[in-house]
Amino acid sequence: MGSLNEIAVAAGINISSALGFLLAFAILRIQPINDRVYFPKWYLKGTRSSPRHIGAGFSKFVNADFSTYLRFLNWMPAALQMPEPELIEHAGLDAAVYVRIYLLGLKIFVPIALLAFIVLVPVNWSSGTLEHEKDLNYDEIDKLSISNLGKGSKRFWIHIGMAYVFTFWTFYVLFHEYKVITTMRLRFLANQSRRPDQFTVLVRNVPPDPDETVSEHVEHFFAVNHRDHYLSHQIVYNANALAGLVEKKKGLKNWLVYYENQHAHNPAKKPTMKTGLWGLWGRKVDAIEYYKAEIEELCKQEDVERQKVMSDPNAIMPAAFVSFKSQWGAAVCAQTQQTSNPTVWLTEWAPEPRDVYWPNLAIPFVELSVRRLIISVALFFLTFFFMIPIAFVQSLANLDEIERLLPFLKPIIERNSLKSVIQGFLPGIALKIFLILLPMFLMTMSKMEGHISISGLDRRTASTYFMFLFVNVFLGSVITGTAFQQLDTFIHQPANKIPETVGESIPMKATFFITYVMVDGWAGIAAEVLRLKPLVMFHIKNTFLVRTEQDRQQAMDPGSLDFGTTEPRIQLYFLLGLVYAVVTPILLPFIIVFFSLAYLVFRHQIINVYNQQYESGALFWPDVQTRLIAALIVSQILLLGLLSTQEAEKSTVALLPLPVLTIWFHYVCKGRFEPAYVKFPLQEAMVKDTLQRANDPTMSLREYLKDAYVHPVFQKDDMYELVAMDEEEKNPTVATKRQSRMNTPAESKFNSSVGTSEGEFSRMHPA
Amino acid sequence: MGSLNEIAVAAGINISSALGFLLAFAILRIQPINDRVYFPKWYLKGTRSSPRHIGAGFSKFVNADFSTYLRFLNWMPAALQMPEPELIEHAGLDAAVYVRIYLLGLKIFVPIALLAFIVLVPVNWSSGTLEHEKDLNYDEIDKLSISNLGKGSKRFWIHIGMAYVFTFWTFYVLFHEYKVITTMRLRFLANQSRRPDQFTVLVRNVPPDPDETVSEHVEHFFAVNHRDHYLSHQIVYNANALAGLVEKKKGLKNWLVYYENQHAHNPAKKPTMKTGLWGLWGRKVDAIEYYKAEIEELCKQEDVERQKVMSDPNAIMPAAFVSFKSQWGAAVCAQTQQTSNPTVWLTEWAPEPRDVYWPNLAIPFVELSVRRLIISVALFFLTFFFMIPIAFVQSLANLDEIERLLPFLKPIIERNSLKSVIQGFLPGIALKIFLILLPMFLMTMSKMEGHISISGLDRRTASTYFMFLFVNVFLGSVITGTAFQQLDTFIHQPANKIPETVGESIPMKATFFITYVMVDGWAGIAAEVLRLKPLVMFHIKNTFLVRTEQDRQQAMDPGSLDFGTTEPRIQLYFLLGLVYAVVTPILLPFIIVFFSLAYLVFRHQIINVYNQQYESGALFWPDVQTRLIAALIVSQILLLGLLSTQEAEKSTVALLPLPVLTIWFHYVCKGRFEPAYVKFPLQEAMVKDTLQRANDPTMSLREYLKDAYVHPVFQKDDMYELVAMDEEEKNPTVATKRQSRMNTPAESKFNSSVGTSEGEFSRMHPA
Repeated sequence: MGSLNEIAVAAGINISSALGFLLAFAILRIQPINDRVYFPKWYLKGTRSSPRHIGAGFSKFVNADFSTYLRFLNWMPAALQMPEPELIEHAGLDAAVYVRIYLLGLKIFVPIALLAFIVLVPVNWSSGTLEHEKDLNYDEIDKLSISNLGKGSKRFWIHIGMAYVFTFWTFYVLFHEYKVITTMRLRFLANQSRRPDQFTVLVRNVPPDPDETVSEHVEHFFAVNHRDHYLSHQIVYNANALAGLVEKKKGLKNWLVYYENQHAHNPAKKPTMKTGLWGLWGRKVDAIEYYKAEIEELCKQEDVERQKVMSDPNAIMPAAFVSFKSQWGAAVCAQTQQTSNPTVWLTEWAPEPRDVYWPNLAIPFVELSVRRLIISVALFFLTFFFMIPIAFVQSLANLDEIERLLPFLKPIIERNSLKSVIQGFLPGIALKIFLILLPMFLMTMSKMEGHISISGLDRRTASTYFMFLFVNVFLGSVITGTAFQQLDTFIHQPANKIPETVGESIPMKATFFITYVMVDGWAGIAAEVLRLKPLVMFHIKNTFLVRTEQDRQQAMDPGSLDFGTTEPRIQLYFLLGLVYAVVTPILLPFIIVFFSLAYLVFRHQIINVYNQQYESGALFWPDVQTRLIAALIVSQILLLGLLSTQEAEKSTVALLPLPVLTIWFHYVCKGRFEPAYVKFPLQEAMVKDTLQRANDPTMSLREYLKDAYVHPVFQKDDMYELVAMDEEEKNPTVATKRQSRMNTPAESKFNSSVGTSEGEFSRMHPA
Repeated sequence: MGSLNEIAVAAGINISSALGFLLAFAILRIQPINDRVYFPKWYLKGTRSSPRHIGAGFSKFVNADFSTYLRFLNWMPAALQMPEPELIEHAGLDAAVYVRIYLLGLKIFVPIALLAFIVLVPVNWSSGTLEHEKDLNYDEIDKLSISNLGKGSKRFWIHIGMAYVFTFWTFYVLFHEYKVITTMRLRFLANQSRRPDQFTVLVRNVPPDPDETVSEHVEHFFAVNHRDHYLSHQIVYNANALAGLVEKKKGLKNWLVYYENQHAHNPAKKPTMKTGLWGLWGRKVDAIEYYKAEIEELCKQEDVERQKVMSDPNAIMPAAFVSFKSQWGAAVCAQTQQTSNPTVWLTEWAPEPRDVYWPNLAIPFVELSVRRLIISVALFFLTFFFMIPIAFVQSLANLDEIERLLPFLKPIIERNSLKSVIQGFLPGIALKIFLILLPMFLMTMSKMEGHISISGLDRRTASTYFMFLFVNVFLGSVITGTAFQQLDTFIHQPANKIPETVGESIPMKATFFITYVMVDGWAGIAAEVLRLKPLVMFHIKNTFLVRTEQDRQQAMDPGSLDFGTTEPRIQLYFLLGLVYAVVTPILLPFIIVFFSLAYLVFRHQIINVYNQQYESGALFWPDVQTRLIAALIVSQILLLGLLSTQEAEKSTVALLPLPVLTIWFHYVCKGRFEPAYVKFPLQEAMVKDTLQRANDPTMSLREYLKDAYVHPVFQKDDMYELVAMDEEEKNPTVATKRQSRMNTPAESKFNSSVGTSEGEFSRMHPA
């Protein structure tokens, strides 16, 4: 229960912080020294190798061209400028579809908000029940909400009608969006040039054979059962130990180069170091000699380990990447069952080579199910017992309660400004700190569950994280806040009065969630574009730590869209929007502002910053849709619960068909679109096979696929060969190399015509 | 709350009625006149064409060999005699697996009952809480149940431990059984000789094409996308009107033959008839002439209709049966997605030709989902609002209540014998009458839902029927009975107190369910073997209506195992057994008797009586398993609810892992075995292809498959050609013909060695 005044203060704080972040960003981004923080994507693509505004001396670091400061908000239209097909080519389908989630929010909520303000707000406002009951403690904002109607009002029918209208509108938008994205996915897959994963199937749980090695067994099995289509296969080695050695050697080589550079700059002084922990104590030795010896030692170990892995039958995992002569053959193998025992010879589409999560490839069937059980139970406890600390913080939001319980604090709290600050900031921030730590745990748990691709890990993390947010942020905020007030009655209520109890508290929590949207949404998104942490880290690293070109590459650290963390948070906004659309429509504009701002910012980020780790072809969309449907059902059930406490029981029966219809809609969409994300149609495969055979009849597919699915540590070492850094960006081949490794198209329309985001500037401002 | 005395009376009644039925069966079955009622399977197989005990004159109808009367119980060991592989060959896998469900009941409950009687019954009995509370109204039977422990007793830990032991034992048996049946299914499929459905895929939702007919479109699509495997296809016509005409003509021809027979017997008198309703009024005409004219007329209509169907493009459904050159090709096509739009070109394994439910083949995708929605809602209402009449009948079971409400009935009810009769019989019978009418509705609803095979319809009906039985028979009996006593408190309880409320009433309802098991189970199964209705119907028809050989075939009416009705009822016994295993173990012996008797009876029936309509290869087992798991979870939740009302809340937490483990076990089994019922492994297909090619290289598959999937009305008319009946079984070709149509193997080991069930007799009694 906040007043309009409190909201205004909170809005003021958050808007100014958001504007502050945006302003800082607008200024920082045009400084040449920050160029690698705000435009790393272009460096990685190889289209930019040094800042554009570069001058001599001082202006090498600071932008002295003051005319650019006048156009400091230009990044906003620039972010919208790039057409979607180019965006897909530039950033990948995953990223392009990801920003469409924000757009989807606008598509759903802008019409709903308009309708709600035209119909529901006047109805609520004119009811005036709250005004008549003088003993009630209410706020101006409650007069705009459903609470103003009073028990048993006939006007609830209007809200029920609106619930139907909103639901059907959401259906329409969701169906349309699913259709568009499915089409985009299919077109994307069809337009892709030849990729190894199109011809390759991952086989797991190869059964042991007493007479044959895994490799022979795989070859014989597929040569028999896919006689006309089998081409070759690649065995999977358990190279986790070897990967550790390689990683260690990389670090040592880096140090070596650093000391060699030091020595080159200052040939008089031999660089020395201490061998103890972090070079702080221990014997002093010649650094260059020391590292050379260490590396040599490690090389030997590595060779031994490599030999061991290659020769030891126990190091061969019962899994393989099997390649086929045609996409048709691969599509058939991936979709069918191979033997009568469905726990062996499990086939599925191979993930992209860079998307494979190698350590999980060898988990046997039974162990997988045990792991799933354990992780599910662990997730349950994590989700439900993490609530206790949040409950405490949440209770702070209710200042009136604190005053009642701790009256001596009253004079401090009653100071108007302080009260607003506490109420506007504290709950949101406390939640944020909890939530920042969480995704790491969830990702670790997903890894333990045994998913075999990084994209799969991300998707799994997203769904567990959403469960967590739903229970702890949404339900936790709604129930705990009220629980403080009605603790006595609440404990003795049965568990499934929850829809009613939650529904009843929903209108009271509107102010809290408006604040939450502003803190987490507005200010959070503005902070996202500023990239404060990468900015600081880059400069720290650049100043103190960057020793080699590779270090600088790493210091640049564009990061990637963290689907597992960000998507569930968007879903929370969808949930809030859908729940409050009928109850307290005043919340909707805040969410719309969030979606618009986020759309702008993330579009900018994927164009200029993020570098995707993998490309799954929007494989996450069915999950997004499922969570949206879940949010819709939750909103309907809570509205039902709310109305059934308002002595409108009979009219609430009219709401019962809504969840049924929604579940039905879910299955319709699932049946209609989901196969496009799970299976690969044979017709498409046949068309692509025919085209590719016609275009490139002499192509040796076997040669092409030979090393595609070799474990990274066995791939050619020169990828990790280091390039000594003398001066910034002398060696453009680094970018080119990385480019080929990242598998982004070499020449896109966009690259050739526009080139860089500076190019956008000039296109928009021809003068 | 019944007393041991009441149970004894009910048991006496039911045992005597069961024994009476069995005795009647034992006598009736050896009468030659009933031979076609009790051994129709052998007639249909063609191994028997007339009763064995046939004599001359009177003994043509009545068995005069009194020695056979002394061995009247011999059918019981005889039913167990046939080994399972022969049973599969004789009656099909569906039937053989079906009787294994009863065996599964024994496997689960015999060890559980032993353990319960060794451990739980002494613990319950020795607690003696009920004896100390003199004001409580309790029965001897309650002293054996968990109610005797008293609130907060430490002995609940023993029950909790037993709940774990029982659950794990059930897991073990279920897993083992699923494994065995999956192996049986795979071996059955592998051993089958060539069948059309092995090479054929049903394609639905063929998209319309402006330039091509459906047939051309199908051919082109598969010739392109399954280039190396496509063989031929068969278009599906909408021949429902034509099928009606054919059916009508069949009836008229039957009458014609009947009158011709009459005329032949008595050439002097021309048979006449009236043309009005049922031949009761109207103009008198020469019957033979009349029917000849009618048939001729109908033949013309039929030809016109046939021409219309064949030429009218609108009569061609957008569906087709597509056949492949190899099983591998068919297996691939059935398991894969064909185009990027997953709502067209839907492929699945074709059902057996005789299993196809033709009217549903043409339903488009969107209509299917709408139908599913409507039927789901209808099922919900049917399930939940059908309870009202049952509630009324159930309340009768509680005589004490009736006496209290209607005191003037007291003298009548108090007569001990009547009281026991009412309490022993009424509730069970009333339920039965309700339940007999229900499966028809459910089957109609399944048909409206759009399933395309008769086996699928049966499976769907079974699951809806089980839902119904669970809600109305199980929950309805438990709650309504108590509701009468606690109506006031009950209405104001929240909905999810249900586990507690139900759990609390469970022990009180033990007597009722024991009675139910005896009435529905014992007497019902004994009545099943007597086949009273088919017996009466056969003799009525044989005396008054049988005019032709075909009529006699139809009058024989072996029926088939009605999976949709009988399986859910078995599941109810599983549910009762699992629920009461811990609570009132005294119920278990009654259930064990039921399972033993039912196993005997149904094994006898599938050997001698039933003629399966289709063979799905035990496709129903995953459903059976799922419902068993559901019953297990329900039993665990109710035990939880019960214990939480016994002031043993803390120890009940120890039960919480059980449902989690059970759900996990379900997914393990599903992952491990279910694919064998959904997919067809490519390895098996490849092996069979290779074998068949080696065995029969010259076979023309195209010829073989040509007419396999033609709509029955287009198939060669001679199948419906009638054979005039002069004397019983002059014409053995009838059986032979039907045999080939029924697709049962022509010569089985069993047939050649033993021949008939009389053969069993002689084998068992060589003297």
